[in-house]
Amino acid sequence: MTREQLIEQIKRKKSFLCVGLDPDLKKIPKHILREPDAIFEFNKRIIDATAPYAVAYKPNIAFYEALGPRGWNSLQRTLGYIPKECFTIADAKRGDIGNTSSLYAQAFFDKSSSGMSFDSITVAPYMGRDSVTPFLDFKDKWVILLALTSNEGSADFQMNLLNPRLTRNDEDDLGLMNSQVVLDHENEFVFERVIKVSQQWAGADRLMYVVGATKAPMLKQIRRLAPNHFLLIPGVGAQGGSMEEVCKYGMNKDCGLLVNAARSIIYASSGVDFPQKAAAEAKAMQQEMEKHLQEFGILA
Amino acid sequence: MTREQLIEQIKRKKSFLCVGLDPDLKKIPKHILREPDAIFEFNKRIIDATAPYAVAYKPNIAFYEALGPRGWNSLQRTLGYIPKECFTIADAKRGDIGNTSSLYAQAFFDKSSSGMSFDSITVAPYMGRDSVTPFLDFKDKWVILLALTSNEGSADFQMNLLNPRLTRNDEDDLGLMNSQVVLDHENEFVFERVIKVSQQWAGADRLMYVVGATKAPMLKQIRRLAPNHFLLIPGVGAQGGSMEEVCKYGMNKDCGLLVNAARSIIYASSGVDFPQKAAAEAKAMQQEMEKHLQEFGILA
Repeated sequence: MTREQLIEQIKRKKSFLCVGLDPDLKKIPKHILREPDAIFEFNKRIIDATAPYAVAYKPNIAFYEALGPRGWNSLQRTLGYIPKECFTIADAKRGDIGNTSSLYAQAFFDKSSSGMSFDSITVAPYMGRDSVTPFLDFKDKWVILLALTSNEGSADFQMNLLNPRLTRNDEDDLGLMNSQVVLDHENEFVFERVIKVSQQWAGADRLMYVVGATKAPMLKQIRRLAPNHFLLIPGVGAQGGSMEEVCKYGMNKDCGLLVNAARSIIYASSGVDFPQKAAAEAKAMQQEMEKHLQEFGILA
Repeated sequence: MTREQLIEQIKRKKSFLCVGLDPDLKKIPKHILREPDAIFEFNKRIIDATAPYAVAYKPNIAFYEALGPRGWNSLQRTLGYIPKECFTIADAKRGDIGNTSSLYAQAFFDKSSSGMSFDSITVAPYMGRDSVTPFLDFKDKWVILLALTSNEGSADFQMNLLNPRLTRNDEDDLGLMNSQVVLDHENEFVFERVIKVSQQWAGADRLMYVVGATKAPMLKQIRRLAPNHFLLIPGVGAQGGSMEEVCKYGMNKDCGLLVNAARSIIYASSGVDFPQKAAAEAKAMQQEMEKHLQEFGILA
């Protein structure tokens, strides 16, 4: 899917909602568990209920992979059922050396090989350029690169500070480290470096970033570094992030946001009324989104 | 598998060879492609041929995932065929927020859920502590954390320099950055930070690191930070790393190394003699390893 098609859909549905398809056999309503492919049947009903309000669907691959080959079958069927106008995200957090990333790209983008063709995949940046670019070899497919994630562990490495002017003399046999003088105003977080460097690999028409809603104030700085890119924002709702703040700091002239909600929608009820409750939750989010889109002058 | 069992096997086989099971339908000998499950049949013959010389097997999950559900079936059968004394590594490079990493752990460690139970999994560190520790909830299972990888892109982020004393004032509305005085002798690479911080999560009995053989001189510094941990070393052979250097800088009193070779062994021949050629390559590597183990006084 192209950027233009995504933006067009956002304007038409007045929504930037992404529904996370994280089907957990421990949480799926009892009456669905009786179906031969309960995962697919659950997803099907969620998709039917939420499609008027959602512009994207994001299966979290771990939920399917945990079930072995039958999980992958359910994933294939789920992807096949998502309406064609919706943007699809394989939330897989893959990334490996070049020839291996090419195979992961095949797994999620090449229907003739794996039976699946998502519009995009989430990728971990740790291994650098050649671990990411193989995904971009597929026309009109997107990489959604982890930048600043919503979890506590994001502080461990993503928020380490580095300085592009630091150098170290690794000839030094004792392993001592020497640095040049460090100038103020140049320190940057690892996640900022990821955002800067990765923009050399693809433009805003092929690359998005994951930024957790729990880090909403950081969006201001992220928008300085990446004014035009779409951001995939998990963490609104169950994880405590605020839609208000996400929009205030993160929205751009094309909207530039996909806000993901999973648990709050798909497990809104554990009874037979779960599709109705999921629809109501999705609609409530869509209406809040419409309000923000209007305030930002994005809906003509 | 416990650390003691792994060390015992290394001493018994006089080898620290890990065979990478990266079956590529474009490279598998023609006569095998006629089999209904060619991937498994290829792996089976490679395992039979190399088991006397190998202490570990490492299926690269991308090669299976690229084929959809049938690839996962081949992976299950392959894992089931690996001799019980061998250490098994799911080279999956996973990592996600806590509840999702738990599901990835289920996928690779919990046979009752996914049909597979590897001894270990490779994990990407970018998302920090809570993305890694769920894998450690499984008894006797290992995390092999990416530290310094063998590919070119390892320079992009893993080798960025940071300083633990740098701070930044994010209250600063203009996004300008202030730093404290930076002391020399404290700068560290991101991958060094990963090695230091992750040692708070698990000991050398549950945690290994991936270090590419193409970065062998760095092993000296890595051994200062992690003297006892096993290191999984890809990149000897096809990627140009040197066994000599890897042993010189990386071996410790328990060996502490698993050197992976894939292409140079499994594609040593494209003819009907491929198992014999694979065995010969594996044996040659084992013999070089035996020499180093003897020189280091590890074989009593």
